[in-house]
This record gives sequence, structure tokens and C-alpha cells, in this order.
Amino acid sequence: MVQRKTVLATGVFDILHPGHIRFLEESKKKGGPRATLVVVVARDKTVKDHKGHGPTLPETDRLELVSALRPVNRAVLGHEKVDFLGVLHELKPDIVCVGYDQSDVKRKVVKLVADQKLPIRVVKIRKFGRKGLNSSTGVKKRIAANWRGTSLAR
Amino acid sequence: MVQRKTVLATGVFDILHPGHIRFLEESKKKGGPRATLVVVVARDKTVKDHKGHGPTLPETDRLELVSALRPVNRAVLGHEKVDFLGVLHELKPDIVCVGYDQSDVKRKVVKLVADQKLPIRVVKIRKFGRKGLNSSTGVKKRIAANWRGTSLAR
Repeated sequence: MVQRKTVLATGVFDILHPGHIRFLEESKKKGGPRATLVVVVARDKTVKDHKGHGPTLPETDRLELVSALRPVNRAVLGHEKVDFLGVLHELKPDIVCVGYDQSDVKRKVVKLVADQKLPIRVVKIRKFGRKGLNSSTGVKKRIAANWRGTSLAR
Repeated sequence: MVQRKTVLATGVFDILHPGHIRFLEESKKKGGPRATLVVVVARDKTVKDHKGHGPTLPETDRLELVSALRPVNRAVLGHEKVDFLGVLHELKPDIVCVGYDQSDVKRKVVKLVADQKLPIRVVKIRKFGRKGLNSSTGVKKRIAANWRGTSLAR
């Protein structure tokens, strides 16, 4: 029997766009047939510490949305103080997939895996979709611009 | 053998939030076990004609996102010129579910079903979630406000 591989992906997933779906589908494919995709959704506090401002949707909402995506087998909230090693020990992935904009995560996980001699492959997933609307920030920029336009027009 | 019921729901689904997921899950439940949920995603032109401005995400993106939601068996784009009767004939639902904010759709479908003597039940789904972030408009308002704050702070 071929063992089902566990693939781990992580992110903020603030305002969902097709780039998220393609990232998750592509990540799951890396685990081969019948892979299990587990997604760690970043905590509000982590985002705030990292970016200086929190996400638009609270973590419980973001978790609910990611859990409802078809490729996702299981979604969990991360630790408030980022703990990659703890997460790897808890979720025991065979593969960790990182997005095109997660070089920082990639570097840290690659180092951990090497230092700890963990049997985990780290894979970078390429960027998908049209420029501008394939990032939550791009979508937010557009909303803010349109909102101002709408307000002025009224 | 019990026939699988087809449930139809419709909406713009511009910026996804948990209210959308709950609306779709609750709609599907109305069709009983093994129901098929078909979702008609409003066209950009329809939204623009109706609201005076188009949605943030183009229809192809919104269709892709809705198609990726676990409760959704099939998602299709609507007609550019809204055609409820055409949609009912094409998709042959047993039940049409409308959201708490779709009284207009409900009234039109109820009238059509009565006039045409169609074997279709129309069900209104209650509102879910916290106030403010259970509507795409609420989420957009918050993004626009935060964006202004962010720009000023930088």
C-alpha cells in the first residue's frame, strides 16, 4: 500500500483570490495521489507583529474560509509566536510547500530541516494568475481605490 | 431510490467571508442528504447595471473561487441580462435558496414559479455571522478605512 503523503502549506489567506486556490491545489499535487493537505493559517498577532497591522478578517474567519476550500483536508491556526519546529513535529508533513512570496518561510524551514535532519522536502510553488489581483494586497488596493471613487461619486 | 435534489443559489460572491460559506452550506442542507448544490455567479455586467459599479474581482475569478468551495458541486456564470426563467429551465432545481439580503431575487423567483406552475420550492436562508464582516460591502468598508490609515501612517 502506498502511504498517503502529508503536504503542509501556510499563509495569511486574508482576502481569498484565485492565486490562493491554485497555490493550494498545486501544493497538494506535490504529495501525489491521495495526498492530505494541511494548512496552517497565520494568527492575527503574528501578522500584526510582522506587518505592523493586522489582517482585515480575524483569524477565526480566515480559518473557516480556508477550511471550506475543496483541496484543504485540514486547516489549523498557527502559534501566536511563530514556531516552525513545533508545527513540523505536530503535523509531521512529508512535504512543505511555500508560495512565491514566502522566501523567508522557505529559508527558515530549509535550515530547520537540515539542522534537525528531518525527512521533509521543501518545495517552492510558482506564482499564478494575473498581476495585481493575485495578491491579497493587490485586491485591497483596488478595493480602497474604488471605494474612494465611489464615495466621491455620491 | 431517493432522487438527489438539486438546490440552486445565486450571488455576486465578490469578497468571500464566512457568511457566504454558511449560506451555501445551509442551502445545500435544504436539499437533504446527497443534494447537489449549483451556484449561479452574477456577471460583472449585471452587477454594474444593478449597483452602478462592478465588483472588485472579475467574474472569472469569482467563478473560480466559488467553484473551489467544498459545498459547491457546480458553479456557473449567470446571463449578462438576468434571466431567471432561463436559468430555472437550464438547471432544473428542486429548491432555490435566497440569502437574507436577496428579497428582490426571492420575489421575482416566487412569482415566476407561481406563474409558470414550476415544481420548485423557494427558501430564504437566515443571516449568519457577526455584524459588519458578514457582507462583502462590510469587508470592503473595513479595507478602505484601514488602507487610508496605513497610507497616512507611512
